[in-house]
Amino acid sequence: MHAAADFIPFAHALADAARAAILPHFRVDTGVENKKPDAAFDPVTEADRGAERAMRDLIALHHPTHGVLGEEYGETPSQDGWSWTLDPVDGTRAFISGLPLWGTLIALAYEGRPVLGIIDQGFLDERYVGFPGGAEVTARGVTQTLNVRACGHLNAATIATTDPFLFDGAEAGGFEMVRRTSRLQRYGCDCYAYAMLAAGRVDLVIESGLKPWDVQALIPVIEGAGGMVTNWRGGPAWMGGQVIASGDSRPHEQAIVALKRAAKA
Amino acid sequence: MHAAADFIPFAHALADAARAAILPHFRVDTGVENKKPDAAFDPVTEADRGAERAMRDLIALHHPTHGVLGEEYGETPSQDGWSWTLDPVDGTRAFISGLPLWGTLIALAYEGRPVLGIIDQGFLDERYVGFPGGAEVTARGVTQTLNVRACGHLNAATIATTDPFLFDGAEAGGFEMVRRTSRLQRYGCDCYAYAMLAAGRVDLVIESGLKPWDVQALIPVIEGAGGMVTNWRGGPAWMGGQVIASGDSRPHEQAIVALKRAAKA
Repeated sequence: MHAAADFIPFAHALADAARAAILPHFRVDTGVENKKPDAAFDPVTEADRGAERAMRDLIALHHPTHGVLGEEYGETPSQDGWSWTLDPVDGTRAFISGLPLWGTLIALAYEGRPVLGIIDQGFLDERYVGFPGGAEVTARGVTQTLNVRACGHLNAATIATTDPFLFDGAEAGGFEMVRRTSRLQRYGCDCYAYAMLAAGRVDLVIESGLKPWDVQALIPVIEGAGGMVTNWRGGPAWMGGQVIASGDSRPHEQAIVALKRAAKA
Repeated sequence: MHAAADFIPFAHALADAARAAILPHFRVDTGVENKKPDAAFDPVTEADRGAERAMRDLIALHHPTHGVLGEEYGETPSQDGWSWTLDPVDGTRAFISGLPLWGTLIALAYEGRPVLGIIDQGFLDERYVGFPGGAEVTARGVTQTLNVRACGHLNAATIATTDPFLFDGAEAGGFEMVRRTSRLQRYGCDCYAYAMLAAGRVDLVIESGLKPWDVQALIPVIEGAGGMVTNWRGGPAWMGGQVIASGDSRPHEQAIVALKRAAKA
């Protein structure tokens, strides 16, 4: 029987492979396709596809009994309880706008629950890794332990969300209360907001409409750094949907008072 | 009589001095003071103050007849028509949140009109420089010409603004029309959005409430890259206020149709 930590070196190998597939396309004019030509703009780049293929190939070769769920190429069921959830480029919109706030998200789950997570920002050479009992970042050759910071009240909190216009009506009302109570707001960070939360620079991240591959890698990183990730009712978040992540339980609970009225089943 | 280009090496020296004063404070837990303790949160860090002091000292030493206007230490009048406008850390909120989207803004104006501009992102080692007739970026040792990209219509445009909640009621209405017409929206970029516009990755940046030191350095960079910066009526932007910057005049004019109703005198 394997323990989650046994797979940390392999998770790094996946992140390395993704970086190699992605970085040649960042800030280069490659094709941006539109997944849904008749609907909202949903860019997919060769970086996304190439990185997911590279990671899936490694998993198939080295751990053929593991499942895989990826944003681009769907689900391969697990045969032994272990499965990988992959978002090759979280923040594709940031990516195609030249902003270094996108990241590769890699999660390993056992029986559906994420136990290892990586947020990899290859352009900045920063890799945030969470595992049972801890989390660390390796940035430009230096590895440091990740620790969230204390924040006693929502009115002292720095909060972040990717796009405040992605909330529906009820959600926007709940977010508005949290936004007006908080001290400082940041937008447009995608997964990098969660990295900054784990590093003790942001107190709260609030999002909705997340897919499993948007959130599973974040949970071990934030929990390993001492924080928490739940849905807007305070329950488990690993299936995505409405998500709130915090470094301190006090602003988390205060924000949920406002958000839970907009919480979905 | 000097030409603007004569001062490019000195402008680089100012940017170097600012970097040296700022980078030791990025992602380090130094004091964040609040300029207005009874009002909105307005963080000022030692990075801001130290960088502006370093730049002012160099100007006083090498060009004592030049004027200086800086965010932190006010105005010194020009004795010869030349003056520097400095924002040591544009995007202080990004800075204290650990996000590498802040920048040092350095403008040289002659008789009030900006003729040289630098957007320096020291953490990424990227320096965007605009001068009469051109613009270039030096990133991690490699210098490239900056060119905006063509964008035929607002509905194909990537737009950016720092914080959509900073607009007042009428402004928010105008921005909402532009936002809903545009293809892709990015928030929270501060001056880095203008750098990405000059680099051909973003089509339109819309902001309001800018001070002269928030905008003067951007104008030579964007104009040198082939773009345009105006106020929301299409007039000069160098005094700040409501600003729109574009890589292509077509979405610029289309956006102004919506924005001009909220344009201030």
